[in-house]
This record gives sequence, C-alpha cells and structure tokens, in this order.
Amino acid sequence: MLKGHQSWVFPSKPVILSTGTVVGPFEGKGPLAEDFDLIHGDLWVGQDSYEKAEKKMLEEACEIAVKKAGLQKQDIQFFLGGDLLNQIISCSFAARTMATPYLGLFGACSTSMEGLALGALLVESKAAKYLICGTASHNAAVEKQFRYPTEYGAQKPPTAQWTVTGAGMAVLGPQGQGPRVISATIGRVVDMGISDPFNMGSAMAPAAVDTLTAHFRDLDLSPSDYDLIATGDLGRVGHQIASDLLIKHNLEIPEEIFTDCGMLIYQPDQPVMAGGSGCGCSAVVSYGHILNKMKKGELKKVLLIATGALLSPLSYQQKESIPCIAHAVAIEHIQ
Amino acid sequence: MLKGHQSWVFPSKPVILSTGTVVGPFEGKGPLAEDFDLIHGDLWVGQDSYEKAEKKMLEEACEIAVKKAGLQKQDIQFFLGGDLLNQIISCSFAARTMATPYLGLFGACSTSMEGLALGALLVESKAAKYLICGTASHNAAVEKQFRYPTEYGAQKPPTAQWTVTGAGMAVLGPQGQGPRVISATIGRVVDMGISDPFNMGSAMAPAAVDTLTAHFRDLDLSPSDYDLIATGDLGRVGHQIASDLLIKHNLEIPEEIFTDCGMLIYQPDQPVMAGGSGCGCSAVVSYGHILNKMKKGELKKVLLIATGALLSPLSYQQKESIPCIAHAVAIEHIQ
Repeated sequence: MLKGHQSWVFPSKPVILSTGTVVGPFEGKGPLAEDFDLIHGDLWVGQDSYEKAEKKMLEEACEIAVKKAGLQKQDIQFFLGGDLLNQIISCSFAARTMATPYLGLFGACSTSMEGLALGALLVESKAAKYLICGTASHNAAVEKQFRYPTEYGAQKPPTAQWTVTGAGMAVLGPQGQGPRVISATIGRVVDMGISDPFNMGSAMAPAAVDTLTAHFRDLDLSPSDYDLIATGDLGRVGHQIASDLLIKHNLEIPEEIFTDCGMLIYQPDQPVMAGGSGCGCSAVVSYGHILNKMKKGELKKVLLIATGALLSPLSYQQKESIPCIAHAVAIEHIQ
Repeated sequence: MLKGHQSWVFPSKPVILSTGTVVGPFEGKGPLAEDFDLIHGDLWVGQDSYEKAEKKMLEEACEIAVKKAGLQKQDIQFFLGGDLLNQIISCSFAARTMATPYLGLFGACSTSMEGLALGALLVESKAAKYLICGTASHNAAVEKQFRYPTEYGAQKPPTAQWTVTGAGMAVLGPQGQGPRVISATIGRVVDMGISDPFNMGSAMAPAAVDTLTAHFRDLDLSPSDYDLIATGDLGRVGHQIASDLLIKHNLEIPEEIFTDCGMLIYQPDQPVMAGGSGCGCSAVVSYGHILNKMKKGELKKVLLIATGALLSPLSYQQKESIPCIAHAVAIEHIQ
C-alpha cells in the first residue's frame, strides 16, 4: 500500500458512500449554501453553549451521512474524528452519541483528510466495512479558546482568517456508488518559524507545499493528472504564498485548477479578512461542494490537501513558533 | 483483518522492535525504575517550562527507541502519537524534531494503545515498514492544565490519581526480534454519568470492561488465554470496580493475572492516592516493565488495555459527565 516515502495507494478504491454537512448562519449566506445538507439560522444551534453547538452539529452531520448511505447507526463500525477544541471534546461526545468504536484524531484543520486517509486505509485493509470520519469547528467556540470571545469584538489584521462554523462527515465503505478514495499522502510537520496566530495561512503554506511535492514525487504524478487541487484553509494570503513556493519547487499548478476551501466558502463581501479556516472549512467544502461537483460529472479527479496549524494558546504564550502539517487525499469519480 | 464487531487480527504479527522509556524523578524512585531507559533527576528536564520538559522526554524516548532498533531516524516512516496537553503540542513538537510524516491521535490515557493498534494496522497492511508510536505525560504540566498548578498544593481526595511523568515510544516493523502484536480491540465511548475529575478510575472502569468483554467475544478467547491482563491507569479504586463489573459480566479474570499499570509504577509508601495515571503511565509500564518481562521469558502472552477519560476542563465546567474509552492490544513473545 505504501508508495514512495509517505503515500498510500488504495487498489480497491474505498467508496465515499455519503456525506453529511451542517453549517452555521454565516456560511449559509455564502456562495456554497446549496451544497450543504443543513443550514442553521442560529449560531447557538439551540444549545446553551457554543461548544455544545459544535457537538450538536457533528451529531447532525453523522445522522445525515448515515441516513443518506442507506445504513443504520449500528452498521457503522468505527468513528474517526477530531476537532480544534481542547481534548477534542466535540468528537468524543459525538462518538458517545454514535456508540461506535472510536479513534480520536488530532491534526488541527488537517483532521478532515487525516481521518479520510486513515478511514480509507481501514476499509482497504478490511479492518472495517463501514466507518464514518470527519470533523467540525464553531466560530465562536474556537475564537474564544484560541483568541478572544467574539463578543469582545477584538480587531484583527487582514491576514487573519474566519473560523468556519460547520461539521462535515463522510461514510466510507468497500463498494457502492460514489466518489472513490484512490491515494493519500501523510504530511510531515513543517515549521518555518512563523509565530503569529493571526497569520496562519502563511504558516501553513509551506506544509501544504511539502505534502504536495511529496504526493507528486511518491506517486509519479503531475498536477495535470487532477481536475482540481484544493488546499484546506490557507486563505488568500496563504494561497498566494503556496503558489509562489510551488513555482520555486518547479511544481507550478495552473491557476484554474488550484484553489483553497477557505477562499470558496464566503462571498467576496463577507467580512472574513483572508478567508475561511477551521477544521470545518475543508470538511464542509470538500464533502459538500467539491463532492457534489464530482457527482454532477463536473470533476473526475481531485486532490484535497487539508492544512493544520498545530499550535496551542500555551505554546504561543511560551514563544514557540507554529508547527504545521498537511495531509492529501486523492478522490476520483468515474460515472 | 476485522473480527467480530470491533477487533482486528494481525496475521503477520507486526514486531515491536524496540521501545524507549523516559521517566521523571518520582517514577525513578518507584519499583520499576530498572525497567526504564532514562530517569531524570530533575522534573524540569533542563527546560524552562514543564510543557517543554514533556516534549523533551518524548524526543528522548524516540531517540532511544530508534537507536535500540538499530535504525536511523530517516528509516522511520510515520510517527503516531498524542498526549494530554491541549492540541497535543508535545507530540506535534516531537514529530517536528523527528521530521517524519505524522498522524496525531487523541485518546487521553488510552493513546498508547490507540497508537499501537493503528501502528500494527499500518505495518500489517504494508502501509508502513517502520514506524514509531507512543505518548507522554508530565505531572506538573498536566496537573496545571486540568486541575491546579502543583505549586498551589491543592488537596485531593483518596480516589484521585497521580499523573505519571514519563514518555514511552515503540518502534514497529514487519519482522525481526521482539514481542509481536497479534490483535487489537478498539473501544467505544462509555459514559456512566460520573463527573468528578478526582475519581477517574471509577469513570474509566466501565470502559475497560466494555472493551475487555468485546475483545473476548470478538476473538472467541477467555482470560486464561493470557498470562497477564493489564489495564492502563484505573488505579486501585478503578481496578476494584472493574473486577466487580467483570464478575457481573460473567468474565472473571483471576486476580493473579489481572493488574493495572497505575498500581505497579509507584511504591506503596509513595503518596499517590489511588495510583498512577496519565498518558505516560500505561506507555512506560507497558513498554518498559511488561515488555521486559516478556523478553525475559516470564510472560508469553499479554493483553494491555489503556483507558482514557475524554474530558476537558471546559466540558467539566459545563457540567458534562466524563466520557471514557479503552483500547486493547494483545502481544505475544515466543522465544
């Protein structure tokens, strides 16, 4: 299954049988609204804390995904997931609700693709028949934990990004209708010494480039093998840096196929500074928008690279720089 | 590979080629001191924060394990790990030092066996040749984050446990000399409504029992198939509860083969209340003491069940109960 230094090829091509995507009101006003299964009009999602709202959205995304796959909760053998909250409480509580054997993951905003890569490995190696994987973030819960409660109205520089309120889950299985996972590249921790948590895109761009170059080298592929290459949440600033770095690595990706989930999810006039971020960003854009385009026949082969900034408020206070990571998963859909 | 509902059998029996165990001064005064590779006389490990001390110990454990396996750092293809600190910063920083593709995990104190189970799956499915997995905890860093800084001298009830200062890593490979991983059972989240963070053993015992019963059911085994069955860090209180619950489940484990890493690591006169806990507890006791006994021929087949309490200080403040989990890994060593 291993190819090259850090990539996996899945000969049986595990199938993404269904997905569930749930977003908040701000994301519901974005250009991808029609791609999401459930849009909440209320940031509290009927709960009495933002953390409970994040958990609730994860539970809803699980329920939707399992139902769309035509399965029952008890058919799902494993739950693979993680989130940005300390001790990934949202996923652990959602896994409690699912009552499914649970593998907790942490890759910050790279968790969506860490889960999909590991999930595909489980199905490929017959360690699971059906499993669910995914992640979530909630703008107000994440901002409160990593920066300031949103109610404080703290100002931010234009390099900052807007944490997506959203949960995205995918059900995988060995066969059936749907886009198929064909390969994955597991990223290394890359740290270029950036320590500004209001400039995550710049911090994460080199990790995305490291994983992209590894992917193409390990699998002997070139960008033209894909119809779309989408990073997770670099935003506009990070996307430009990644594009520039790729040219330096002699791996130019044509502009028309290279995008970023954090640049797609909001309207140009939504006040999100450099774009969207958070675990939920790549999860809902990939599992909602991009897979929908594949199912419509508009895209046949895509590469998703979710990027994560592995800092904590404490590591930042202790003057550490921001270690970053990116995991890539290739998906094809031939109808 | 899947057997029953939630267990994996590894026909190729991935080998634990080597381990590295590093502990603090208090653990160095315990009865297992001779089983550890490195004992620090200073809780700061020469660093200027307890968090950096935890990271340093992880790096040392990695270095020792890789060296003992007769490998170079660049031979290791993946790093699987997690810890108790917010956003698992210790592991992410250690993975940065290792410069190895990294899969961040979170299972609280069950992380040691989550990593070993997934690591064995990667080797079994040929997704990796050599990898390293493990975890760490640091008493002062963990106490500060979850409860009060140790310097405050806050009093604790007798049901509380003492977080182990220790890092344990294992190098896995497809063949070679050493104990072999033969099966694993991935646990479900079990929550019996306990919300007292000073009584984790009681909270985690039902999760251990749930995974144990699943393991024996899935693999059609009985306790007598093992020479030793060791839970991760239930401590004395949790161990008694687990023993009682097992009898209720008609799965009595004879006293002489049923133990708990949190009961083994400290002397009876060390003031640790109900026993040891923390990610590092099961990691250093399993990878130090128990595997050493296997290598000496004293144990042939053991079952390790690392238990985790998936709470965060915030979930506790929001009056949530403590969701718990346990992952089991079976190891055999036939000389």
